[in-house]
Amino acid sequence: AAVRLVDTFWSPRLRTNREVTIPAQLAHCEKTGRIDNFRIASGRATGEFQGIYFNDSDVYKWVEAASWSLATDPDARLESDLDEVIDQIAAAQSDDGYLNTYFMGEREAQRFTNIKDMHEIYCAGHLFQAAAAHHRATGKSKLLGVACRLADHLDDVFGPGKRSGACGHAEAEMGLVELYRITRDDRYLSLAHLMISARGVAPPLLGGSPYHQDHQPVTKQTEMIGHAVRHLYLCCGAADAVSETGDRGLMHALDGLWRNFTQKKMYITGGAGSRWEGEAFGADYELPNERAYAETCAAIGSVMWNWRMLHITGLPQFADVMEMTLYNAVLPGISLDGTRYFYQNPLADRGAHRREAWFGCACCPPNIARMLSSLPGYFYSTSADEVYCHLYAASTATISLPNGKSVTLRQETDYPWSGDIVIHIDAVPDEEFALCLRIPFWANESEAGLTVNGVDSTDRLQGEAGRYRAVRGRWKAGDIVRLLLPMPVEWIQSHPHVLENLGRVALQRGPLVYCMEQADHAGCDVWNISLPEDSDFAVEPRRIGDLDVIALCGRGRVHGMDDWRERLYQTYGGPDGIGHGETPITAIPYFAWANREAGAMLVWLPVATDA
Amino acid sequence: AAVRLVDTFWSPRLRTNREVTIPAQLAHCEKTGRIDNFRIASGRATGEFQGIYFNDSDVYKWVEAASWSLATDPDARLESDLDEVIDQIAAAQSDDGYLNTYFMGEREAQRFTNIKDMHEIYCAGHLFQAAAAHHRATGKSKLLGVACRLADHLDDVFGPGKRSGACGHAEAEMGLVELYRITRDDRYLSLAHLMISARGVAPPLLGGSPYHQDHQPVTKQTEMIGHAVRHLYLCCGAADAVSETGDRGLMHALDGLWRNFTQKKMYITGGAGSRWEGEAFGADYELPNERAYAETCAAIGSVMWNWRMLHITGLPQFADVMEMTLYNAVLPGISLDGTRYFYQNPLADRGAHRREAWFGCACCPPNIARMLSSLPGYFYSTSADEVYCHLYAASTATISLPNGKSVTLRQETDYPWSGDIVIHIDAVPDEEFALCLRIPFWANESEAGLTVNGVDSTDRLQGEAGRYRAVRGRWKAGDIVRLLLPMPVEWIQSHPHVLENLGRVALQRGPLVYCMEQADHAGCDVWNISLPEDSDFAVEPRRIGDLDVIALCGRGRVHGMDDWRERLYQTYGGPDGIGHGETPITAIPYFAWANREAGAMLVWLPVATDA
Repeated sequence: AAVRLVDTFWSPRLRTNREVTIPAQLAHCEKTGRIDNFRIASGRATGEFQGIYFNDSDVYKWVEAASWSLATDPDARLESDLDEVIDQIAAAQSDDGYLNTYFMGEREAQRFTNIKDMHEIYCAGHLFQAAAAHHRATGKSKLLGVACRLADHLDDVFGPGKRSGACGHAEAEMGLVELYRITRDDRYLSLAHLMISARGVAPPLLGGSPYHQDHQPVTKQTEMIGHAVRHLYLCCGAADAVSETGDRGLMHALDGLWRNFTQKKMYITGGAGSRWEGEAFGADYELPNERAYAETCAAIGSVMWNWRMLHITGLPQFADVMEMTLYNAVLPGISLDGTRYFYQNPLADRGAHRREAWFGCACCPPNIARMLSSLPGYFYSTSADEVYCHLYAASTATISLPNGKSVTLRQETDYPWSGDIVIHIDAVPDEEFALCLRIPFWANESEAGLTVNGVDSTDRLQGEAGRYRAVRGRWKAGDIVRLLLPMPVEWIQSHPHVLENLGRVALQRGPLVYCMEQADHAGCDVWNISLPEDSDFAVEPRRIGDLDVIALCGRGRVHGMDDWRERLYQTYGGPDGIGHGETPITAIPYFAWANREAGAMLVWLPVATDA
Repeated sequence: AAVRLVDTFWSPRLRTNREVTIPAQLAHCEKTGRIDNFRIASGRATGEFQGIYFNDSDVYKWVEAASWSLATDPDARLESDLDEVIDQIAAAQSDDGYLNTYFMGEREAQRFTNIKDMHEIYCAGHLFQAAAAHHRATGKSKLLGVACRLADHLDDVFGPGKRSGACGHAEAEMGLVELYRITRDDRYLSLAHLMISARGVAPPLLGGSPYHQDHQPVTKQTEMIGHAVRHLYLCCGAADAVSETGDRGLMHALDGLWRNFTQKKMYITGGAGSRWEGEAFGADYELPNERAYAETCAAIGSVMWNWRMLHITGLPQFADVMEMTLYNAVLPGISLDGTRYFYQNPLADRGAHRREAWFGCACCPPNIARMLSSLPGYFYSTSADEVYCHLYAASTATISLPNGKSVTLRQETDYPWSGDIVIHIDAVPDEEFALCLRIPFWANESEAGLTVNGVDSTDRLQGEAGRYRAVRGRWKAGDIVRLLLPMPVEWIQSHPHVLENLGRVALQRGPLVYCMEQADHAGCDVWNISLPEDSDFAVEPRRIGDLDVIALCGRGRVHGMDDWRERLYQTYGGPDGIGHGETPITAIPYFAWANREAGAMLVWLPVATDA
């Protein structure tokens, strides 16, 4: 609630999330029996468990989404719906604290008999996160009580000196640390730590596979591997544990894993997970575009992990990845009208990949909803005498400092369309502190501008790209800091071992990755277009759905395909094989693709070699 | 037995197949309980069925391999081993003709209850093929009797007017037509046709999925889709049905499917199946290299299909694909020493993909063995007054003509290393016939030579590349036809929609596709090498394992990787980003890769763009 977005980029997305997405998801949960499963477990309704055994988690993610939304935008109808759902959840809890509607009733005897596959503790983790969010957002404690009773039950079963175990799908570790942060009950933190340490031991508790990240102790891991969401959530939980315990061995491993991820396995969008089989990370540099998996949930896992790494270290590379991922890997997961979702996020397509209204395995939709409704919380952080500004968007924020006083900041900007960011200091305590502004990794520091009350400070920016620039002083209300980040169109190439991107570039402007979509290229297949080396792009406004975007407009060459009719291979004819005709081309932000008529799309564009 | 290979390429492979591979595979079958499963089914041994439910098929494929081997190379020990295995198979057959060791004993009641998933009829099909091979190769009829009794049983269950059904994995269709060809029992041909027609009906009999090719009637299919081996085997069976029935609708579909396969979904090696998930064909032009699936069995399925299409049509494009696939997609499936196998055949690797001695699902090893031992049978075909020569290798052949007379041909050549092919007509009946020589699609007809008894006939070759060149006459013993096919090093490019091959070429010489392997490039990662536009290659002999090969030697550029340290993406620096240092480079035939120390490999090589 401290941050209120008033921009034309995020705030319409968040409004759609509140007004369209969250109500529609509740309806989906009702229609598919996800809420009924709780009613049946409590005896308030009769019937059989419906759907997949981890469907409780979708309800919990919806509760979290609704809770964060109420924090920024009170809504009596939503609050009443949420209370009703929480009532059903609470009623379903067993006397011993156990709660998982799949393992209640006839399957009660199977509880914790297959923690590797059945997502039992995973579902508990989502309840913990939801309860923490609900408590923080509304001050209410009913769901928190449910969560603590279930956490107590888990501690009874898996606590110190009891049975060793962890879920085959990491998630509970994060949730337990959240409960610890609220309750300060050490058992929850200890249990999270135990569950992290339970992986990779001999004999293995989860089958010993990389898929479950059970092949090595987390402290020994150096490679992102196996199921992408599982590994990223595990890293989130481990980072949470580090932040509360300072565990240096675990932090060392996380640092190596993060470098492996961002230097060898991350799509330029921030997307994670290259393989459909196993929804998994691929080998180093294995980043197929059309068959990218890049699950929306994995991108959300990466945002959560980077957020945690940022807070442990204060280092801006984590905020850089977080921001890129938010714009280019999370946001594409939902349609602009808030009604349809991508599970996979390919970087190239022939037009068949379209968002869907819901999934049998519906992990992604409520995950996006909770990410969007919690977004204002990702803008600022504080330390003893610093306010860190991680994200930019027109907004007001009243930020509590550790000493109990507060700062009111107001951002005026068209970010991410413009890098001109004016920060008004509207209210401030009478003491020195530093405003730490993130200079994104893509900023050209020699052309960036920084003024404080109109006084040029650009000389201080040298070497600051990909850093936080601290502007320290004794501030007064009315002070103005202005950051000017030029946003030229950047041509990005990938490491030569990314086989599919050889001879190709991706266009990026500010934090946004662009793509060419068929809808802007009537009569010419976008897969047949290449960019001449000397291409220039003009920025032009376009409207896609309800959103005004900045498109990149230039000229490309069109490959003559006549000599490829009915051929897959032929003798190499030299580099002039590509790019003979000319055509106007338009690139749009990748997140906005597939919101118009179906058609081909491409992020990595061939560079014409016959200049 | 009509064709005896005496060359230095195939005959060492076939000798290794006989002396090493086939005996070792029998030992694997014994060790893994595959033969015991028959002993248990017959009551000659006690115990539980071991392994996967379709393991009978591996034994049948081994029987086929051993049978064909006995046809060319009698071997008392192998014949005795084979008779013993056949005895175990025969003893296991039920009185009603049923035979599948998984569904005998305690699972008897489950027979044909899940024909979609359990490979029950598939196993029968491999028995039929094995029995036909055994009968043809040895003249013995014991296994043929077993096969016919099982086919009769299938006809009782699935014959005309009975239950509709087909196996979820096509295979039996081919085997039934083979039985029909030997026995002329119409029921077997009808049953094959029924099983082909049972696919794609409503309601679906096999779940209706593309994976099982049950999404459309075969006659309506236009796209190779789903499990690659299943679809290719289905096409084989359908082609067999066409060859015996002349079914025009089915042939029309096969023609479209073949064009889809070869023009949009086939690796340059002939490999088939792009996706690990579902061992499946991908979308059009989806041909990843490092993550190619390209199952060895799929390549064998393609050879069998093309062989059948060749015989239906007499058209050489099928022989072209067959030959390319034999050399470049089947042969890589086995190590040069005959002891280890590839299941998947990637076209790029970092060094981790190595052949294995056996697999739990061991479909590929005995499939290669039967393909190799039957290879001599793929060299020649006849029509009323023509002898077609499909493949070239130093060999002698006594070819029966339809009129009962015979022709003896002797090929002298170093093919595939040289395109100089001398065909001696050693014995010939006193009547006119045409010798039809395949001019491969890769031959440059303006440089190819053809002489008949020393008289130049090259003018007759114009327009003949990718055709059969008929040399017609009244021949006499001692006549000599010489075909000279120059084998320059060809640079091949792929269709621009194959995303991963943009800016890359593959090297081909004659029918062989080449690759660069790390073993020849000490101190320089082969993934960092590019070919200058003006590269020339010299052919040089090299020895790999027991085989003398022709390597391609030239000079490449080495990418300086310093600016990529710890980076996955960076600003595009222009096309001179690739290829600064120089290095000698060596390309070896792709089939021979992974027979030396482990290391990176690449088929599609980047073309340096900073010439």
